[in-house]
Parts: sequence; structure tokens; C-alpha cells
Amino acid sequence: MTEQFKLYCFAQSGNAYKAALFLSLAELDWDPVFVDFFNGETRSEEFKKINVMGEVPVLVDQDKNISQSGAILHYLSLKTELFTTNNSDLKLEISRWLLWDNYKLTPNLATGRFMSLFLPEAKRNQSVIDFLLGRASASLKILNNHLVDREFVVGDNVSIADLSIAGYIFFTEEFDFDMSPFPNVISWRNRISKLRNWQHPYDLMPGHPIKR
Amino acid sequence: MTEQFKLYCFAQSGNAYKAALFLSLAELDWDPVFVDFFNGETRSEEFKKINVMGEVPVLVDQDKNISQSGAILHYLSLKTELFTTNNSDLKLEISRWLLWDNYKLTPNLATGRFMSLFLPEAKRNQSVIDFLLGRASASLKILNNHLVDREFVVGDNVSIADLSIAGYIFFTEEFDFDMSPFPNVISWRNRISKLRNWQHPYDLMPGHPIKR
Repeated sequence: MTEQFKLYCFAQSGNAYKAALFLSLAELDWDPVFVDFFNGETRSEEFKKINVMGEVPVLVDQDKNISQSGAILHYLSLKTELFTTNNSDLKLEISRWLLWDNYKLTPNLATGRFMSLFLPEAKRNQSVIDFLLGRASASLKILNNHLVDREFVVGDNVSIADLSIAGYIFFTEEFDFDMSPFPNVISWRNRISKLRNWQHPYDLMPGHPIKR
Repeated sequence: MTEQFKLYCFAQSGNAYKAALFLSLAELDWDPVFVDFFNGETRSEEFKKINVMGEVPVLVDQDKNISQSGAILHYLSLKTELFTTNNSDLKLEISRWLLWDNYKLTPNLATGRFMSLFLPEAKRNQSVIDFLLGRASASLKILNNHLVDREFVVGDNVSIADLSIAGYIFFTEEFDFDMSPFPNVISWRNRISKLRNWQHPYDLMPGHPIKR
């Protein structure tokens, strides 16, 4: 039997994980399609036919082909009515935190991690890494303050805002990134990791460890 | 008479401009509220009561207080049915490009510009600036390819995807940033600047020139 959804992804992509985590927590039928990022697949002409932006994740739902983790999360929550709310004010809050993640947290945390972990030493620029991880820390401080009296980012339940923000926060122990100033973020991450059907990105998506 | 909307903004913010441009093009009743970013107002405790994220824009619509330019654009398009579409596939495309802007284009272009133009020379780190503007150029290349046979980013009409993406592209002549590899982006920007009620950010929002 063919699964309903296909997700182009690879284990080290926190952006793909945002979508994979939704699919897993919601117990949807899906198959991962491995994209060999570390050997250049997202830069190939063939992959650009799947996504002109040259990025994972891409979700395939029958004839629909959707990229950008935030668009996928909105699409899946609209389709399944999961990890969202009927309250229009809270819906706006979810959208606001999801955009905040895409603008302020993930670009800095993901790129700082990538340059720290996956770039050959000769190509690493420490001042760029320090800049990016400094901005990621400033963003995590905002999140940490926000979570002081909250179980989840918006309202009382886990939403696509949590799934988006959490994407790269499951990787922070892999490299030299200090999470100790953000205890509320750590508690929140623990809450997410205890949800039924939660799995770590390396277990949920193919491609770990990296083969070059 | 009190205007319907208030927008916390300042002239140099391309993110605030995204919202201001919607308000202007849609001929809505709105008042800008000047935020003195360059003298530290967004970092003040008072401003954090308006937005915990410490950023402009913030749109006030009666008792609603909305931040993140993308959330504001979605909110205004839902409320007015302008710069959006009824077609669900195109709606998804709009969301996808708006998120792409928030993730791939604006963080790099806005921060690279800020560091080039507004940071004192002693605080400037040229390798960080080069990194950010290099990534902005890579994103503009994707946009340029996408616009090769299109008038606007999604479908046949201007949408909130265009308004979001255009935010910082009206500032590129202010600093040493080469737009010549992106002729389709320049043509598209010209089309936007010819829309009825279009204004340059420095004319649409208060605070230009900067007073310190």
C-alpha cells in the first residue's frame, strides 16, 4: 500500500524534522524520501524540479508538492485539525511564533550548527559562527522568558508553533552550544520529547550517520 | 477621529514597511506610531510590554496587538480579502514564499544592510557582513529565476508574498549591494513601485533621517 504522504528529508535537517514530527505525532501514514544533502542532492537540477528553492523538507500529498516547513505545518494542521486551535486569537499567536522561529531562531541556530558541525575546518569562519550562535542565544532568551509560566508556546496544548521552534533544539547537545541559560526551554523540550510517538530526528528520518 | 489601525514602526525598518505598504496600498485608515529604534526604544521594558519579541512592526487593531510582519500580513489579508486569493493552492504558494522571505531573504539582507549602514565602524565585522550579503544574493538569485516569466511572485496579482519579499529590496541602493545580477527582481520592484498609493519606506513611515 502506498502511504498518503511522502516527505523529502534527511536526518540532520531540523526543518524537515518539524514536518516529520507532525506526521509522527499525528500518526499519519507517511514515507520519508531520503535526500542526500551532504552529497549535493538539493543543489541538483533534478531536485530543483521538486523545489525551486533547493531545500528540504518537501511534502507530497497526492498531486500537491509543498515546501517550507512553516507552510507544511499550516497545511497539515488545516487538513487534520491537529496541533492548531479554533480560537482565532490563538491561531494568530501560533502563526506569530512560527514566523518568529523562521525569522529569528532557526536561521541562526541551524546555520551556526551547520557551520560548527558539518563544514570542513578550512571553510569555517569562527566570527560568523559566533555571530549566528549569539543571535540564536538572544532568541532563546526571549523564548525562555515566554515559557516561564507556560507548558507550551501558545495556549495550553502543543501546536505547530512548538513543532517549528523545537526543530533544531533537539540538536543543541551535538556541538559547543550552551543551553544552561535557558532552563524553561529545556523543560519544554522534555515535555515535547514525552509526547506519544515522539522520536529524535535521527530515529525519525533516514541518513544518520552521514555517509560521504 | 481615531484611525482604525495603529502601526508601531520606523522609516528604516523594512519589516515594518511590509505592513505599512499593505495599509497604504489597501487605503486603510491607519496611523504610524514612531518607535525610536536607534535610541534603544525596542529594547526598553516599556516596549517589551507591547511586544515580548522586542521588535517592530506591531499592528494594533482595537484590542488586538499583532507582531511579526508575516502574521500582520496574513491578518490584514484575511480581514480585508485583499492581496490574497480564494484559490487554496495559490494561498499555499503565498504562504510558502512569505515564509521563504522570512527564512532565507530578509534575515540576511536586513542584517547585512543594518551592519553595513547603521553600525559604527568599530563594531562592524566585514566577514559577517560578507556572509550575510552572500546569502542574500543566493536568495535573490532564486527569486530572480522564479520571476523570469512572472509579473508577481504568486499568480497574476500582487499578494502579501510580494509585499513581504519587497520589504528590504527598496533599500538596496543605499549601501554597497550589487543588484545587477537580478534584473527580473528590479523589473518586479518597478512594477510594485507603480502601484496606486505606493510610497517609499522613508515617505510612508516616520523617522527619516535618523536623529541620535
